[in-house]
Amino acid sequence: MKKKIASIGEFGLIDILRSKTSCSSDVIKGIGDDTAVVKMSSKKRLLLTTDMLVEGVHFTKDSSPKAIGYKAVCCSVSDIAAMGGIPKHAVISFGVAPSIKLDFILKIHQGMKTAAKRFGVNIVGGDTVRSENNVINVALTGEVNADKAVYRDGAKVGDKVFVTGRLGNSLNSGWHLRFMPRVAESQYLVNKYKISSMIDISDGLVPDLDHILKGSKVGAILYEKNVPLRKDANIEKAYYDGEDFELLFTVSPKEAKKILSQKKYIFYHIGEIVRESIGLLSVDVEGEEREIKMKKGFVHF
Amino acid sequence: MKKKIASIGEFGLIDILRSKTSCSSDVIKGIGDDTAVVKMSSKKRLLLTTDMLVEGVHFTKDSSPKAIGYKAVCCSVSDIAAMGGIPKHAVISFGVAPSIKLDFILKIHQGMKTAAKRFGVNIVGGDTVRSENNVINVALTGEVNADKAVYRDGAKVGDKVFVTGRLGNSLNSGWHLRFMPRVAESQYLVNKYKISSMIDISDGLVPDLDHILKGSKVGAILYEKNVPLRKDANIEKAYYDGEDFELLFTVSPKEAKKILSQKKYIFYHIGEIVRESIGLLSVDVEGEEREIKMKKGFVHF
Repeated sequence: MKKKIASIGEFGLIDILRSKTSCSSDVIKGIGDDTAVVKMSSKKRLLLTTDMLVEGVHFTKDSSPKAIGYKAVCCSVSDIAAMGGIPKHAVISFGVAPSIKLDFILKIHQGMKTAAKRFGVNIVGGDTVRSENNVINVALTGEVNADKAVYRDGAKVGDKVFVTGRLGNSLNSGWHLRFMPRVAESQYLVNKYKISSMIDISDGLVPDLDHILKGSKVGAILYEKNVPLRKDANIEKAYYDGEDFELLFTVSPKEAKKILSQKKYIFYHIGEIVRESIGLLSVDVEGEEREIKMKKGFVHF
Repeated sequence: MKKKIASIGEFGLIDILRSKTSCSSDVIKGIGDDTAVVKMSSKKRLLLTTDMLVEGVHFTKDSSPKAIGYKAVCCSVSDIAAMGGIPKHAVISFGVAPSIKLDFILKIHQGMKTAAKRFGVNIVGGDTVRSENNVINVALTGEVNADKAVYRDGAKVGDKVFVTGRLGNSLNSGWHLRFMPRVAESQYLVNKYKISSMIDISDGLVPDLDHILKGSKVGAILYEKNVPLRKDANIEKAYYDGEDFELLFTVSPKEAKKILSQKKYIFYHIGEIVRESIGLLSVDVEGEEREIKMKKGFVHF
């Protein structure tokens, strides 16, 4: 118990907190998925997520305040999309230094409103406190029909693995400040097809796929030639960079066929789900297989 | 627009953000009450609140971590109680320094669980990020029947003003770390009586009463001899100290009579609601009246 947080990492800390938390029967998913899922009625589920952005970690004093606000709301919106849900109501906490310019806060708020308007979110409340470092917390609710909610633990051997867009180099390209949470794509997918598992890529393709693999007790093979790369990205960046905020999802071969033949959105078929004992393999453009270690993506400690 | 936050204050910032935020029709109360109130069904309302606690402002490195965790959850629980609601589900963000001991976080979490268990809250999710300063954010949902929800804007001339417990000296006495959110008292009040307005005292009796007076467009007279004082408090401390987390509420004279004749809880009758033009008056033990200025309570900037 003398361990420091740095030696445990974010996922370790979440695992420890989860193991020490018990919930009542109306909680369908607690700590550990993209959002919590709570029973609202027999047909409706309430989704609940929270994201903290810290100056010096997620943004700097030189970041555009509008972009900070936009990103703060969109991170949470992306979590709701990853569950198959529709974002609804946000409460926002500002920890700000007394010396900060009102104009800076108002521009952050403007960025938040841009995101809120785009994705149908109502900003309904908040808290403002003094803090040496600027900190923003967005807590967001969402709604999903009980039969449309998608979790991390439903991937089956034989399922196909898809992503909604290009990966890698999100930080250097500035994508991490102007990304589009895939709410429309998510709604299209859950309303038209049976999605077996889904997550948004915030930590990196490999770390986030690993959440699905662990949750579903399966392995996967990724085809490098199929992984869509952002400008100036390579396969390593696509695998580990993080903050792409694309959706990563799995479907049965039958559903995959239908998805590949539709024209409304481009979804990239990047791999297959295999037995857990196989682990995670990557096939390069020459057809060579290599084992992928769960390396660090964008981790917070 | 070159103003700094320090010159505006927390309430000023909230007012500015509120004026710049619009909401859809299912939002019954947005920014500015103890919690947001959102329509869940024709009979049910979802309450939503968020509170940020910052090291160096709301607690120090020397504070008991269990007490920090307890307080973090209870601040939000108190907000839900102030609406007449029952607390339900919490999502918690931790911003922690990499050098922090796991043990410290686990003890904060233990304090959170103590509070959660006591008030029937499920901790259903969270976020953990790196931060120089330790920061905790608790976002909490609650539920209330549509006809039981109590706001800040319903006080009427002639109403009586009550509080649920002793006031003042909360910080020095340590009460601010071990207070009891008045959920039971709130449930008793809203289920048995017609409460015209309610708020929890976090900023101080006078600043929080002022929220009711401004919201309801009324004035008030307080009787100093009736204000219950915590040990080592005086009337000035009771008026301005903050972090008492007692409920401040108003009821009609008829309801007040019933409340004063019940035996289940002690509620203190401390004043009357009067016309707005009278402002806020305080009557001392000699019967001398003085005008009370909206002085600063526990403000954050």
